[in-house]
Amino acid sequence: MNYKSLSRFTALILAIEAGLMLPALVLSLVYREPRATEAYLWTLLFILALSGILALLSRGEKADDFYEKEGLACAGISWLVLGLTGALPFFLSREIPAFIDAFFETVSGFTTTGASILSEVESLDKSLLYWRSFTHWIGGMGVLVFLLALVPQGNRGAGFTMHLLRAESPGPSVGKLVPQIRRTARILYLIYISLTVVDIILLALDMPLFDAVCIGFGTAGTGGFAVTNSGLGGYSPYIQWVTTLFMFLFGVNFSCYYLLLRRQPRNVVRDSELRFYFLTFLACGLVIAVSVRSRFSGWEETLRASFFQASSIMSTTGFATADFNLWPTVAKGVLVFLTILGASAGSTGGGLKCIRLQLILKNLSRNLRKLIRPGRVIPVRSNGQPVSESVLDNLGTYLAAYVVIILTSFLLLTLDGKDLTTSITAVLACFNNVGPGLGEVGPMGNFGSFSIFSKLVLIFDMLAGRLEIFPIIALLSRTTWKHD
Amino acid sequence: MNYKSLSRFTALILAIEAGLMLPALVLSLVYREPRATEAYLWTLLFILALSGILALLSRGEKADDFYEKEGLACAGISWLVLGLTGALPFFLSREIPAFIDAFFETVSGFTTTGASILSEVESLDKSLLYWRSFTHWIGGMGVLVFLLALVPQGNRGAGFTMHLLRAESPGPSVGKLVPQIRRTARILYLIYISLTVVDIILLALDMPLFDAVCIGFGTAGTGGFAVTNSGLGGYSPYIQWVTTLFMFLFGVNFSCYYLLLRRQPRNVVRDSELRFYFLTFLACGLVIAVSVRSRFSGWEETLRASFFQASSIMSTTGFATADFNLWPTVAKGVLVFLTILGASAGSTGGGLKCIRLQLILKNLSRNLRKLIRPGRVIPVRSNGQPVSESVLDNLGTYLAAYVVIILTSFLLLTLDGKDLTTSITAVLACFNNVGPGLGEVGPMGNFGSFSIFSKLVLIFDMLAGRLEIFPIIALLSRTTWKHD
Repeated sequence: MNYKSLSRFTALILAIEAGLMLPALVLSLVYREPRATEAYLWTLLFILALSGILALLSRGEKADDFYEKEGLACAGISWLVLGLTGALPFFLSREIPAFIDAFFETVSGFTTTGASILSEVESLDKSLLYWRSFTHWIGGMGVLVFLLALVPQGNRGAGFTMHLLRAESPGPSVGKLVPQIRRTARILYLIYISLTVVDIILLALDMPLFDAVCIGFGTAGTGGFAVTNSGLGGYSPYIQWVTTLFMFLFGVNFSCYYLLLRRQPRNVVRDSELRFYFLTFLACGLVIAVSVRSRFSGWEETLRASFFQASSIMSTTGFATADFNLWPTVAKGVLVFLTILGASAGSTGGGLKCIRLQLILKNLSRNLRKLIRPGRVIPVRSNGQPVSESVLDNLGTYLAAYVVIILTSFLLLTLDGKDLTTSITAVLACFNNVGPGLGEVGPMGNFGSFSIFSKLVLIFDMLAGRLEIFPIIALLSRTTWKHD
Repeated sequence: MNYKSLSRFTALILAIEAGLMLPALVLSLVYREPRATEAYLWTLLFILALSGILALLSRGEKADDFYEKEGLACAGISWLVLGLTGALPFFLSREIPAFIDAFFETVSGFTTTGASILSEVESLDKSLLYWRSFTHWIGGMGVLVFLLALVPQGNRGAGFTMHLLRAESPGPSVGKLVPQIRRTARILYLIYISLTVVDIILLALDMPLFDAVCIGFGTAGTGGFAVTNSGLGGYSPYIQWVTTLFMFLFGVNFSCYYLLLRRQPRNVVRDSELRFYFLTFLACGLVIAVSVRSRFSGWEETLRASFFQASSIMSTTGFATADFNLWPTVAKGVLVFLTILGASAGSTGGGLKCIRLQLILKNLSRNLRKLIRPGRVIPVRSNGQPVSESVLDNLGTYLAAYVVIILTSFLLLTLDGKDLTTSITAVLACFNNVGPGLGEVGPMGNFGSFSIFSKLVLIFDMLAGRLEIFPIIALLSRTTWKHD
């Protein structure tokens, strides 16, 4: 392990975090929230001091000595540190008195999960509500990608940027839009910012600007923290339809938008993951609508509630307009399925990702045919291109790790004595970065009553889900920390 | 597809089934159950006629033309045919009036699942109760293995026997005890019969002989059909401890018993799957005991109930002495975990099998180390021997198929409108051949209230679970049925 590079990298991430916290500090002054202001100032002091110390420790760094394990460790450590330090404003202002709760809430923010320990949010200081939603926006596209877009890499080799991008970007393979990684990162952030701004403008037409900004951040990052206790149920049908649309859009692979910018709409329409994502969304929304029809007064209301929830869960945002905990089993079953499936690779959404399920199914069908008739070599194809066997091997490892982590977390959570549905959906909702589950952690419930131990398990799940398992597991492996 | 071999093979299986049904016919005469006698006679007539027709159709068979797909199709077809014809006595005697229910009950019997559609069993004719439990015993070791042990293969090549054994025996790789497959099959059945007889004798010391025989069959096949409405709760502590022991023993890989016969106890003690199986059983039993302690009047009663249930679910038998539906979440969570895990490869138990979980974990840890430090080749080892990559690849396919089937079945079952816990545990209990789940399908519930569609889904799951997926999937593939 190249400890000096790791230090330098963490120092950089902390400095960026400090910069990103400044708007919240300003807001606390504007809204005259002295306790929050004080908390931000102490936090900034701590973050910058820590960053300085780490920068000093990293002197004499060998920047070229940066490989897979350094990439994984940097990603894992930086997200852990973001969660720990980002929690300080909530904790120091005593708006969230227990540090474990503040840590849970912040990790839930950065990982765009949106699972909350708060039973009500409206009494929270505005600047803290803002920071809480802003963590979604930062975490959505990824802070490492942000770093790559922002900071010139100087004398660092391609290994550095490639391993970082690979460790943070969602999906079975890394999609470089252009050969230069830095330009790729910039294009991604440009698309991200533009879409967010359009969403906020459309929302602000029918809701207070503060709400529009926070809900916009929650939508863009596919996070799901709301600013009112009734989630999005209290807003107008217009707001709900707009949010349905944008949650869906932020779950699309961003390379599709890049292709649109490059005026290649044909390649977008032909993209097999996009088709799968759209058709699944449509089918699931319709199944839910038929099953809940009798609970609403008209078809518009039914379709609005159904497609809102399908879009919200599939994009792994987790906003709610209704208490789907009370819906029929088939609607709940479809929502659990969408929780596991999730959005597209290369989007801000979480979950297994559509492309993974597609590849799993294709690989399965290929391997079954091989079992029936051995000796034939049949490649698995995606978008007409053969998929490399190493990607498929990785996929198998990913699925195995996924199942093992879900089962283990579920068993650990049963120690809390909550019912089975609550225990399993809490794990699924956190690991897939959705937020609400069913039972006690349904859209009208919260995660506050779990034990500290369970909260730590769920924090692990949220981080493992957002970083797609490997960077977080790497932190636990002795191989990572060995001196070379 | 070699249709003539398939016909000949199915004819043989049907003839064997007819032979195995004779004791039940005799019993119906002894107990003076005229409706049952009549049903058995019509069934035997039908089975033998069908067998004869198929034997005629198979004339001119090319016996050497027998490959992977013929092995898979023979296994799949013969189990399906056994379920359909074995259901006739229940249906024709009108003890189970709906054919789908009789089919469900019989498949549940042959696959050693033990999930029942009956709300009470004590009013059933004795000879039918016997047949119901005997299907467990037949299905436990496998009817194809029985065929291999019984019938000389004449001019058939090694391909025939090997592909058949592979298609029916549980576990990631085929354990041949001796180089000759026929001798292997005989040794397996000899061990099976001996253990069953010892179990029945021990049981008969403290319960009626009829009950002892039926419970013995249910234990040996790890099935779980009982002959009283209270399951095993009404019998003495002695019976419950004996059954706990024997359920555990029938979940052990039978090659361990062969090694004992060969006087190699050291190799048995060193067997990593046996250790894993035993330690998991011990740990899970203790966790359950601690969590349910307050519900029982003393430690003996607590330990008896806990270890009985752990042994019953882990061996995938499914007997119950208590309504574990009412136990604390952690106990239920552990039982769900054991439902998925299951027994050892090469035993009569179902589930994922211990060796598969061990290999999945080892492969996972290997692949994670490879991700952190690429370029190193590390073999996965089991019992000191390197595991071939093709076994590991197959394991990945198996896990993927497992997850896809469980999820799809769960979604289809939610259409029935039962609660989520019932829906998911019904699928898990059927697929892993355990029997009881939680909620409405708990140990005091039954599967009778599901729709016909749901019952068909669960029948598919039971067959796919018992035959370890591939033979049943092969029946659905066009590749299997193509003329060569």
